[in-house]
Amino acid sequence: MKSIIENQFIENLTRFLPRCKAQMNGLQETDAEIIRIGPQGPLLALTMDSIAEEIETGLYSDPFLLGWMAVLVNASDLSAVGARPLGILINETFGPQADAAFVNRLQQGIAQASQACELPVLGGDTNFSGHTELSACAVGLCDEGSFLKRRGCRPGDLLYTTGRMGLGNAFALRQLKHLPLEIEYRPQPRFMQSGVIREFATCCMDSSDGLLTTLDQLMRINDLGFDVQRDPDSYLHPRARDLCRSMGLPQTALLAAPHGEFELVFTIPPEREMLFLGKSREADWQPLLLGTVTKNPGLRLITETGVITPDTAEIRNLFDQQHGNMDGYIRQLIQYLKSL
Amino acid sequence: MKSIIENQFIENLTRFLPRCKAQMNGLQETDAEIIRIGPQGPLLALTMDSIAEEIETGLYSDPFLLGWMAVLVNASDLSAVGARPLGILINETFGPQADAAFVNRLQQGIAQASQACELPVLGGDTNFSGHTELSACAVGLCDEGSFLKRRGCRPGDLLYTTGRMGLGNAFALRQLKHLPLEIEYRPQPRFMQSGVIREFATCCMDSSDGLLTTLDQLMRINDLGFDVQRDPDSYLHPRARDLCRSMGLPQTALLAAPHGEFELVFTIPPEREMLFLGKSREADWQPLLLGTVTKNPGLRLITETGVITPDTAEIRNLFDQQHGNMDGYIRQLIQYLKSL
Repeated sequence: MKSIIENQFIENLTRFLPRCKAQMNGLQETDAEIIRIGPQGPLLALTMDSIAEEIETGLYSDPFLLGWMAVLVNASDLSAVGARPLGILINETFGPQADAAFVNRLQQGIAQASQACELPVLGGDTNFSGHTELSACAVGLCDEGSFLKRRGCRPGDLLYTTGRMGLGNAFALRQLKHLPLEIEYRPQPRFMQSGVIREFATCCMDSSDGLLTTLDQLMRINDLGFDVQRDPDSYLHPRARDLCRSMGLPQTALLAAPHGEFELVFTIPPEREMLFLGKSREADWQPLLLGTVTKNPGLRLITETGVITPDTAEIRNLFDQQHGNMDGYIRQLIQYLKSL
Repeated sequence: MKSIIENQFIENLTRFLPRCKAQMNGLQETDAEIIRIGPQGPLLALTMDSIAEEIETGLYSDPFLLGWMAVLVNASDLSAVGARPLGILINETFGPQADAAFVNRLQQGIAQASQACELPVLGGDTNFSGHTELSACAVGLCDEGSFLKRRGCRPGDLLYTTGRMGLGNAFALRQLKHLPLEIEYRPQPRFMQSGVIREFATCCMDSSDGLLTTLDQLMRINDLGFDVQRDPDSYLHPRARDLCRSMGLPQTALLAAPHGEFELVFTIPPEREMLFLGKSREADWQPLLLGTVTKNPGLRLITETGVITPDTAEIRNLFDQQHGNMDGYIRQLIQYLKSL
């Protein structure tokens, strides 16, 4: 498989950093870091995620959403390893736009997400600077043998997700292109679903970077492929579908771009599917089937115009190659997808 | 006591945030957050600190120092609660100046501090933006009943520190005023010292914001005062003393400004002093006596010109009142100190 610019950069950054003996996951192998803290007892799950580019590009302009997302993106990583939430630490760097009203809305977003995600704010730091940036580190607990990894699926496993896809990119397009339409974007924590998933899944990752990036990353880690056999209407978010129709965009654009919907993407062995679906029903939620795991690496996808096999590495690298030029990126992405 | 702008701001930010039931420390009561994760076993110590203003003002211009400090500031907080280091997560936001050479030096700083502080890098995040900023969250373990708090000292307790004071502010002055002299600034972890201190100390805080800010914060939390009876020559760093002499600055300026030396400042009950000093000797380090805890709030300090009782609240607020105007701040601080 072609290499991914972002992955190479991270491998390069960490090249000379010694790893911790108590760490139970390899680099890129889990959405959160899993640390053993004693011979018995729970394992720690730790994750750190920042909101910086999203502010600078205008993707997140509402301070409430900013606060909400600072917590939610970290909650999402914890749920993707099947951890129970414990708490969160937040660094808030306030730029010139952070007047009292801005800070107030931001704190409301943090407070509401903190409550929704069951991640009380344990502490943090504040800075005053020429820019606004939020970093957070969330802590959770999980148990030996039952935490979820990105690695572990087998050919024939069923590919599922916790919810519909494409809303994150629909929202991003609306924000970046100043489209005159309302798109309500407020991803929700998936701890309840994760509590069921962790009993059954052979791999799991959140869709924080959109569906195609998630599938690409899972493919490279597992050296397998995915066949997404479902009609996109069955799993594309209705708002994303409407947007594509009104703008004449290929639906895959909203699966391929890197602003996700923060659902969980996971695989279930076929022989355990009935039991998994039963447990999901008991918990009052309905997982969404996307397709199956295939032996050969690569993605096969049904679109409104037929079956395609997009080069997901090329799609992912398009973004990094544009160095923050959003218009250029969107144009190139659509051009590539239309060429398929 | 007069209130502190920074403390008020933090109280305001956290006003509507529910606290975690498992959290064993109150707001501002400890340098790191202490969390119970089970009925038995160790407690978690968590802290999060960012380097943003220090980059923007030019205080940290060497990328190696930047990386070193991102780890060290968090290690310092862990040692100030008497925790054993476990690991660290780092978010790196890269600005335009972050070319390959910059990133390389930065990672060397992180790697060396990570090793020196016994804080392996567990994970993190990367962002690309118009500015450079580093946030990190360090994790440690400590035991019920033996972690250190800022609260707890009593009148008559002896005030100690792990090392000489004033180098942080000497370095800051050199950087901000572009003085043509070399000042080697690379604070070291204090976990070894903290292992001794935690058996004896009645309160502890790191001097990350300089000595006077540390003493002011300890005074307000404990509703007590400090009498620093020692000749400043006995605890001022030689480089700080030289700088004051050559520039005609009052020595207190290098204790009063907010860029610290990351030593531990702590109190020892007089009846346990001999035992404490014995244990320190065994561990091959020598604590530095500064003075005593007094019943009445307020700071009494011996300077090169006599005894002063500076208004530490006014000194702390001077910085926030200048909104990042460093020249104005330095001028006002020196003016105030000379008026005493």
